[in-house]
Amino acid sequence: MMTLPALAAAITPVDAALEPVLRALLDGKAKPPGSLGRIEDLAVRIGLVQNRPDPRIARTDLYVFAGDHGLTDEGVSAYPSSVTAAMVGLFLSGRSSVSAFARASGVQVRVVDAGVDADLPDHPDLIAAKIRRGTRNAAREPALTPDEVLAAIASGADIARAAAADGADVIALGEMGIGNSSSATLVMHRLAPAPLEACVGLGTGHDAEGLARKQAGITRAAQRSDAAEPLDVLAQFGGCEIAMMAGAVLGAASMRRVALIDGFISTAAALAAVRLVPAALDYCVFAHGSAERGHPAMLQALGVRPLLDLDLRLGEGTGAALAAPLLVAAAHLLTDVAALADVLAGVQARPD
Amino acid sequence: MMTLPALAAAITPVDAALEPVLRALLDGKAKPPGSLGRIEDLAVRIGLVQNRPDPRIARTDLYVFAGDHGLTDEGVSAYPSSVTAAMVGLFLSGRSSVSAFARASGVQVRVVDAGVDADLPDHPDLIAAKIRRGTRNAAREPALTPDEVLAAIASGADIARAAAADGADVIALGEMGIGNSSSATLVMHRLAPAPLEACVGLGTGHDAEGLARKQAGITRAAQRSDAAEPLDVLAQFGGCEIAMMAGAVLGAASMRRVALIDGFISTAAALAAVRLVPAALDYCVFAHGSAERGHPAMLQALGVRPLLDLDLRLGEGTGAALAAPLLVAAAHLLTDVAALADVLAGVQARPD
Repeated sequence: MMTLPALAAAITPVDAALEPVLRALLDGKAKPPGSLGRIEDLAVRIGLVQNRPDPRIARTDLYVFAGDHGLTDEGVSAYPSSVTAAMVGLFLSGRSSVSAFARASGVQVRVVDAGVDADLPDHPDLIAAKIRRGTRNAAREPALTPDEVLAAIASGADIARAAAADGADVIALGEMGIGNSSSATLVMHRLAPAPLEACVGLGTGHDAEGLARKQAGITRAAQRSDAAEPLDVLAQFGGCEIAMMAGAVLGAASMRRVALIDGFISTAAALAAVRLVPAALDYCVFAHGSAERGHPAMLQALGVRPLLDLDLRLGEGTGAALAAPLLVAAAHLLTDVAALADVLAGVQARPD
Repeated sequence: MMTLPALAAAITPVDAALEPVLRALLDGKAKPPGSLGRIEDLAVRIGLVQNRPDPRIARTDLYVFAGDHGLTDEGVSAYPSSVTAAMVGLFLSGRSSVSAFARASGVQVRVVDAGVDADLPDHPDLIAAKIRRGTRNAAREPALTPDEVLAAIASGADIARAAAADGADVIALGEMGIGNSSSATLVMHRLAPAPLEACVGLGTGHDAEGLARKQAGITRAAQRSDAAEPLDVLAQFGGCEIAMMAGAVLGAASMRRVALIDGFISTAAALAAVRLVPAALDYCVFAHGSAERGHPAMLQALGVRPLLDLDLRLGEGTGAALAAPLLVAAAHLLTDVAALADVLAGVQARPD
């Protein structure tokens, strides 16, 4: 396992000098310059990440990081914590939404037990990396110890680096954790930063009374700690899966792989990663703009624009699974499309 | 081949009574109701098209309809007509943008010679359906005769119906034709309808002087004929590939297959199809919102919202190829995802 300082040292900004080279290649393709819009930007991003003019996206691995949250004791979620473990079972059975979408996209899904509050049975697609059985209640005490945060980050980095070493070109992040939109809200609030009221949304579903409970629980946690430094924010507000995803972003970046970020909660993890190691942002691609209220402002704080806009608000990595084929297409643009000069030569050579 | 009246008779609106059934199925899946946003709407659309609660998208065939335009004599395009035939060669070589994207999406591409102004060599992926070698100059005379329009529609329908009979679940439409954004502009102007100045855009690329020439050529054509009825509009302003794509939409609808529409020019063809047979709209899915100026207003006239928004303005079917995996994912949502009741039963059965 790599420590955080070692990870930070292994992450370098992409080479800005390559960008005009990639743009010139794209402008020279057999199409009007710029006519493929944001797919051209994505091709440039992938070329920069892989540091080559002929990038290759042959394999995308999606990890669903699962964890529970003590903050649910405050009634912040419409669902009981036990749903987290049940959903892990569903992911592993291949009958979840992200499983279904991943099959459509040729993406392999694995589940990471980052901190589920249950003993999960062994399964070939389940990575046992439990930090603890759920976080502590952040409204009353720090959700995680500093050592637990560092362990989660190191573990997430290790998972992403192992995937990269095994041949994954893209590490896609998804999550499941009852209560984790509250945790992500607090991370966004402190690290974007943004006023708390701009960060709180409906999560996976609330009526007005439920939303009021969620707001109250989040406010109690925010009032308990004025943490503003990324490691401290992760310790105060959790969760295991968010810290581990932040580590996965750093692990992907350290191996020059694309980290494909899903929605609100995954973006909060990416935000933490970027606040720890700013150059990690160069390696992130944001899959979709979530219908969750705080997401646009969080993306804006990062200065990024997501690929898809489909009003998703589920998480699990569903948006990342849907976006994955776009990355393959963008890489193909650089590697598989002829230069305009070749086509024009063909025009001139044509007898008619 | 089916005549237009026979096609119209074979196209029935989808069964509105199935929609609440599909919505209830989706609401019962193991996810908060509505949390997959527009993918749920897409799943409903696909279920309605196939008239079943368990739709299947196993195969998408993309046809690139190619044709030339006599209106290029007016200088409406930045490229010479000879580029159309050269691009057909590029599609067939597999080194075009749409070929590259289609490979990323698992989509098969074939090219249709609807009206290329060149003798094209035989190729296993080229369908010879030439109506004529390029249209007449619409600024001076009708681009096509009424019989040529009907032949193009019947031929397009035949291609789509043959694909459906051969097992294609989705018929995706793309096009190539120097000058065809001018033709599509005139079709939109008369059939949306919309003021001409709201319909003219840059096409595949123009400087200010080029755009002025394009506007002048289009205006001359518009002043020559006041056609407003869809068959007459297609005859007056062309082109072969637009009329043939309109026929392909009707053919797909007549076989209860999804017609996946690409950008500005494909949408103009879909608009003509829908003005001929309004129920055909039920079978159309719009892949992306083009950066071409008139596209948003044309989509609005049809009352539809596209799936992707990636600033594409190339055509060829590139947007349709990129959107194709979303349809597979949406169908999987209905067929592959467990019901929430099953998961909750699992929660209750859990010993902890």
